[in-house]
Amino acid sequence: MTLYENLAIRLREHIELGFYKPGDKLPSVRQLAKEHGVSISTVQEAYRQLEQELLVEAKPKSGYFVSVQNKDNLPSISRPPQRPLEVSQWEEVLNMLMIRSRTDGVQLQHAMPDMKATTLKPLLKDLSKQNPEVGLSYSDVRGTKELRTQLSRLAVASGCQLHPDDLVITSGCQEALSVCLRAVTEPGDIIAIESPSFYGSMQAIKAANLKAMEIPTHPETGISLEALELALDQWPIKAIFVTPTCNNPMGYTMPEDKKEQLYRLAQSYDITIIEDDIYGDISFQFPRPKTIKSFDTDGRVLLCSSFSKSIAPGMRVGWIAPGRYRDKVTHIKYVSSSMCPVTPQLAVAKFIRLGGYAKHIRNMRLNYEKQRDMLLKAIKAYLPKDTRVSFPAGSFILWVELAKDIDSMKLVEKCRQKGVGFAPGPLFSATGKYRNCFRLNYSEKNVEKREAAIKTLGQVIAEMQPD
Amino acid sequence: MTLYENLAIRLREHIELGFYKPGDKLPSVRQLAKEHGVSISTVQEAYRQLEQELLVEAKPKSGYFVSVQNKDNLPSISRPPQRPLEVSQWEEVLNMLMIRSRTDGVQLQHAMPDMKATTLKPLLKDLSKQNPEVGLSYSDVRGTKELRTQLSRLAVASGCQLHPDDLVITSGCQEALSVCLRAVTEPGDIIAIESPSFYGSMQAIKAANLKAMEIPTHPETGISLEALELALDQWPIKAIFVTPTCNNPMGYTMPEDKKEQLYRLAQSYDITIIEDDIYGDISFQFPRPKTIKSFDTDGRVLLCSSFSKSIAPGMRVGWIAPGRYRDKVTHIKYVSSSMCPVTPQLAVAKFIRLGGYAKHIRNMRLNYEKQRDMLLKAIKAYLPKDTRVSFPAGSFILWVELAKDIDSMKLVEKCRQKGVGFAPGPLFSATGKYRNCFRLNYSEKNVEKREAAIKTLGQVIAEMQPD
Ligand SMILES: Cc1ncc(COP(=O)(O)O)c(C=O)c1O
Ligand SMILES: Cc1ncc(COP(=O)(O)O)c(C=O)c1O
Repeated sequence: MTLYENLAIRLREHIELGFYKPGDKLPSVRQLAKEHGVSISTVQEAYRQLEQELLVEAKPKSGYFVSVQNKDNLPSISRPPQRPLEVSQWEEVLNMLMIRSRTDGVQLQHAMPDMKATTLKPLLKDLSKQNPEVGLSYSDVRGTKELRTQLSRLAVASGCQLHPDDLVITSGCQEALSVCLRAVTEPGDIIAIESPSFYGSMQAIKAANLKAMEIPTHPETGISLEALELALDQWPIKAIFVTPTCNNPMGYTMPEDKKEQLYRLAQSYDITIIEDDIYGDISFQFPRPKTIKSFDTDGRVLLCSSFSKSIAPGMRVGWIAPGRYRDKVTHIKYVSSSMCPVTPQLAVAKFIRLGGYAKHIRNMRLNYEKQRDMLLKAIKAYLPKDTRVSFPAGSFILWVELAKDIDSMKLVEKCRQKGVGFAPGPLFSATGKYRNCFRLNYSEKNVEKREAAIKTLGQVIAEMQPD
Repeated sequence: MTLYENLAIRLREHIELGFYKPGDKLPSVRQLAKEHGVSISTVQEAYRQLEQELLVEAKPKSGYFVSVQNKDNLPSISRPPQRPLEVSQWEEVLNMLMIRSRTDGVQLQHAMPDMKATTLKPLLKDLSKQNPEVGLSYSDVRGTKELRTQLSRLAVASGCQLHPDDLVITSGCQEALSVCLRAVTEPGDIIAIESPSFYGSMQAIKAANLKAMEIPTHPETGISLEALELALDQWPIKAIFVTPTCNNPMGYTMPEDKKEQLYRLAQSYDITIIEDDIYGDISFQFPRPKTIKSFDTDGRVLLCSSFSKSIAPGMRVGWIAPGRYRDKVTHIKYVSSSMCPVTPQLAVAKFIRLGGYAKHIRNMRLNYEKQRDMLLKAIKAYLPKDTRVSFPAGSFILWVELAKDIDSMKLVEKCRQKGVGFAPGPLFSATGKYRNCFRLNYSEKNVEKREAAIKTLGQVIAEMQPD
């Protein structure tokens, strides 16, 4: 047995005996080396071993921590029906949108970021003292040059070389998705999507008279390329629609090499990729993960995003990097809502330019990661033992899978009466599957409030299981 | 001969001899009665006679004026091809949108209102000191209750009883039109439209995979009901799309009884009407004309509008009164761009609530009417004798028809070099007709600048006619 294996065993024991608990900080590399009289690199090797076993996690600049999550209780790989289907569930989505105004209780259903962070202050100050006259006229249908310039700078972090003229500003990511879908399809076309998938994109598929082909999706690595290839062989799929970085609702980030493989697959079948990167900037990984767009050499990837998750959704500032579809995208954007309001664009551009944005997302990443771990702990403590839960690689939303016989649509009703809200699973399926699943938001800093809500949730679930 | 006929003859002579010139104020009723020793009602009868001859116009609270326009030189009734066609002209529209940023010269091409009016000040002040925090979150997908409440109050002036829940807020009128088209059609459907028509709505028809059936349109009373009925008999038309009040680009307001007839026609063929009322509030008529929607008893009219012409387009605040299509419209609005930014909605709602809006449009109506007359004079003075020109019943745009052999696409190029811009006719046709026509904006208060531009225009036209 090597020195590092030996050390790894002792650390594993300590963790398994509960000496260190999930989320606890482990001793520093330096400290352990001293304690055990081994070299720094031996300790590093031992930690690497435990990391591979998912027992331990490294956090940039903070050291090693006991994982709050282990692979055993990740949600199952999804197995949606293997044929193109019409999207349903609009009623359910509308219901959820409509309860938006309630502020009582703990509302964990909306994918809203923390907007009380102090790092937002410079932007808010700027928004509160705008010169309104600059925002009165019609302006460039592609959006302001100022914002497009800043966006092309930000894109470097995700591996993209984009010119400001390669970008079109939209009213949030929702308009971006909708415009891209309409730009690359004809009515009746089939779109391959992850399953589960964000309900807004599925409803856009429905509204554009398209069919959705849900592809089995792995809770840690995303859409199955094997299943996708099978589907591409069987059906005339027009485009692939994915959220590969900090996926909504599952939270995974597709590994970089898999992103590249997905791009090659699209190339070999000569189809288009619509990539939703809305959570990309609040990945817990630093530097942030590359986009599929970063591998794009022939312009077949349309990248969509917005500041709705990294800053605030109410500003409605989103964008498209439309690749070779620029002209078509410009046309559809023009008919969809003409140009976007200028004032928020200018405020955000300034926020980025002066470094406030970088600072803000750094702050958010750290908070959200901590809050994720606290929520995972609460779930472990209060929800049934057989609960499965995703392990988000970024963002502030998390996917919970309960035992098969628990109906989240009934659960959501019962919980609403107790002032606890969440987004039930069927919203995230084209055809109302995932009835035993739901999505929780953990963006708010008030951890206690959320814990109390999870406790309530646990009680309601227990009451639903009469045995 | 009656007393009033006698008086009418003398007045007509004075006008025809040039004693009173186009646009001049005529003596007051009281003054004439005294001068000619006749009763007030005799003078009124005489003026009414001359009004019917279109020699004289009454202006509310100001008295009688010599008409600047007479029926002889109105643009011709349009005769578009009588079959459904795909919309082209996107390149031309994009070209015009792209030169938006140039500020040199006199740009008469954009349908932008006067945004320097002092009556806008309360709104601007409010916009400049918003509490930015209220605008950060996701909110009601139908728009804020505050604005929908104010809009339902405004609707009374156009003859409509609307509940706040009968309204959906949109990103300008463009999104309203686009959403309505998508809500009431399937790809491949045929839409009947006026000819000429606003290019934004035609491009929305194109983008929704629909066909446009252009209907002959009268320059004073709008879409021909006879031609429309013929088309309805011949083709499976799904919806009628009209801008019947202060039409863009022709400026006419369809008479109220004709609006009602159009509604009855739609009823008897069981089809939908999409009514664009974007210029309705800046009609020169007071109280403002009724909408087709005001006759709607079965919810088949979808009314679209925005504050882009009555306040400022950059705010992007528009709305739909979708009638029986409310659920479908809400769905398409949600997928199109999710909810609209809250801040401008609240500012506009307050502007309306405190009476600033009513004051502002009163101011604008008076200014625009004066500016229309000044522009008509300039056209008479500087453009060729055979020029035909519309007589807008409201708004700040005017349609010019030149001799058949003059190509406005060439003209626009030549004029651009001299710093004069206008919107060439082919933009307003599905298939690039109206090559000898163009649209001019007269919203700016600087009349001299516009006059100089018309003079330049006249010179360029003269140079284009070598004979
Ligand atoms: C994956 C994903 N894409 C798009 C959107 C829509 O974003 P926006 O609010 O910017 O329109 C959301 C919002 O929930 C989302 O989660
Ligand atoms: C008749 C008509 N409808 C709709 C629009 C689009 O308006 P908005 O800027 O509110 O989207 C315009 C703008 O020019 C218009 O003239």
